[in-house]
Amino acid sequence: MDKELLQVVKVGGAVVEDPASLSALLASFAAMPGLKVLVHGGGRAATRVAEALGIESRMVGGRRVTDEKTLEVVTMVYGGLVNKRIVAGLQALGVNALGLTGADLGYMLSDKRPVGEVDYGWVGDVREVDVSVLADLIAKGVVPVLAPLTYDGAGHLLNTNADTIASEAAKALAACFDVTLVYCFEKKGVLADPADEESVIPLISRESYGSLVDSGVVSGGMLPKLDNAFGALSAGVSQVVITRADALGSEGGTVVRL
Amino acid sequence: MDKELLQVVKVGGAVVEDPASLSALLASFAAMPGLKVLVHGGGRAATRVAEALGIESRMVGGRRVTDEKTLEVVTMVYGGLVNKRIVAGLQALGVNALGLTGADLGYMLSDKRPVGEVDYGWVGDVREVDVSVLADLIAKGVVPVLAPLTYDGAGHLLNTNADTIASEAAKALAACFDVTLVYCFEKKGVLADPADEESVIPLISRESYGSLVDSGVVSGGMLPKLDNAFGALSAGVSQVVITRADALGSEGGTVVRL
Repeated sequence: MDKELLQVVKVGGAVVEDPASLSALLASFAAMPGLKVLVHGGGRAATRVAEALGIESRMVGGRRVTDEKTLEVVTMVYGGLVNKRIVAGLQALGVNALGLTGADLGYMLSDKRPVGEVDYGWVGDVREVDVSVLADLIAKGVVPVLAPLTYDGAGHLLNTNADTIASEAAKALAACFDVTLVYCFEKKGVLADPADEESVIPLISRESYGSLVDSGVVSGGMLPKLDNAFGALSAGVSQVVITRADALGSEGGTVVRL
Repeated sequence: MDKELLQVVKVGGAVVEDPASLSALLASFAAMPGLKVLVHGGGRAATRVAEALGIESRMVGGRRVTDEKTLEVVTMVYGGLVNKRIVAGLQALGVNALGLTGADLGYMLSDKRPVGEVDYGWVGDVREVDVSVLADLIAKGVVPVLAPLTYDGAGHLLNTNADTIASEAAKALAACFDVTLVYCFEKKGVLADPADEESVIPLISRESYGSLVDSGVVSGGMLPKLDNAFGALSAGVSQVVITRADALGSEGGTVVRL
């Protein structure tokens, strides 16, 4: 039997922070037919709250160094403020949303990142996804809303990048569903010319990716995103779509396939 | 067929705020056999975070006036910080915990309290509990961990007293289970002599309650707690136990029955 289609949609902090863009996003997401999962960031809100609390946000390579106090902040902001706002907004649109951190139902276990050149503190690298937890919920019509927090199995929450949560969830769910992983970000897709918002590359394959990297068209923050995408594809995800949040549910964006 | 036993345990903010008392509480709760639900407060942590953010906490009759900024704080603290710490701690003890606000799975709807002499702001009075959501989870071995936040069905979270969450959940669950509602607080039970911690009144019935109130033995903050208890009993809850958090799971405390 063919697997049922499932979309795992990741939205970043900028979109969920602004009330107008959040409500537009939730409306587009709610209107998407079929099975779906939402994964959210919240870094900007975390930085704002940390600042208000007098806690300095230290970033290394785009990743937040998470000391004890910062873990409190991201637990509050990702697990509480952002997650519950999204859940409440989706419920009002008739979507049976359920907010989850990795600790809830023990669905996503991670290991505290070993201290190397950088001590990232309470940051977790995903060890295991209990896909049956997510699959059972989805089969019952529930839409999981995943916060970027995982769990070490020993009582500690860990801060985990939302792109990673999305790709790990998508990879695990690929065992049960025909999964499309959608990354929403600020641009309409991967652009051939960064200055031209309309120059979206419609399709990237592993073959064309190499030459896009070599020619410098794909660089910077897009590299880890696309590496993540190919990692997900290699692990069974059917396709990855990179698009703008306000284009969610419509055609367009960059489709990444093996 | 006899209904299965279920314990709904409410713990206050003071217990969950302190790491040592929290871990003792979670150990006792985890060791309790049978079906169970945990309801937590978090008022002290909310006051602490609000203070750090420069937001004044305004209380009227023991209830927090919840303006827009305060709703942000309680959403972060109750839904995020406190709830997720408890969930992570319980999972580490082998309890399959799932944190819920009223918005999650739409399980607890409330109405924003009408503005009377006091405008409580974003405070909700419970309208409806979707008991099938809780009962289905419990039947699958899940232990719901309920934050004191409800949901108006129109996209807004509302601040709701944890005692009320506990009694409303217990009343609704009494349709499916033989429910004991346990209120943990600072004393070993309802005391005949407030100065003597050992003077616990072992049993209060509706009959004896009247004379305890008339004689002034029960007064102050214990009155709403016991009124809540009798409300729950009238609505089908089998018994209410008032005890100290560190006595959870052992005999003792005050048992309230009709």
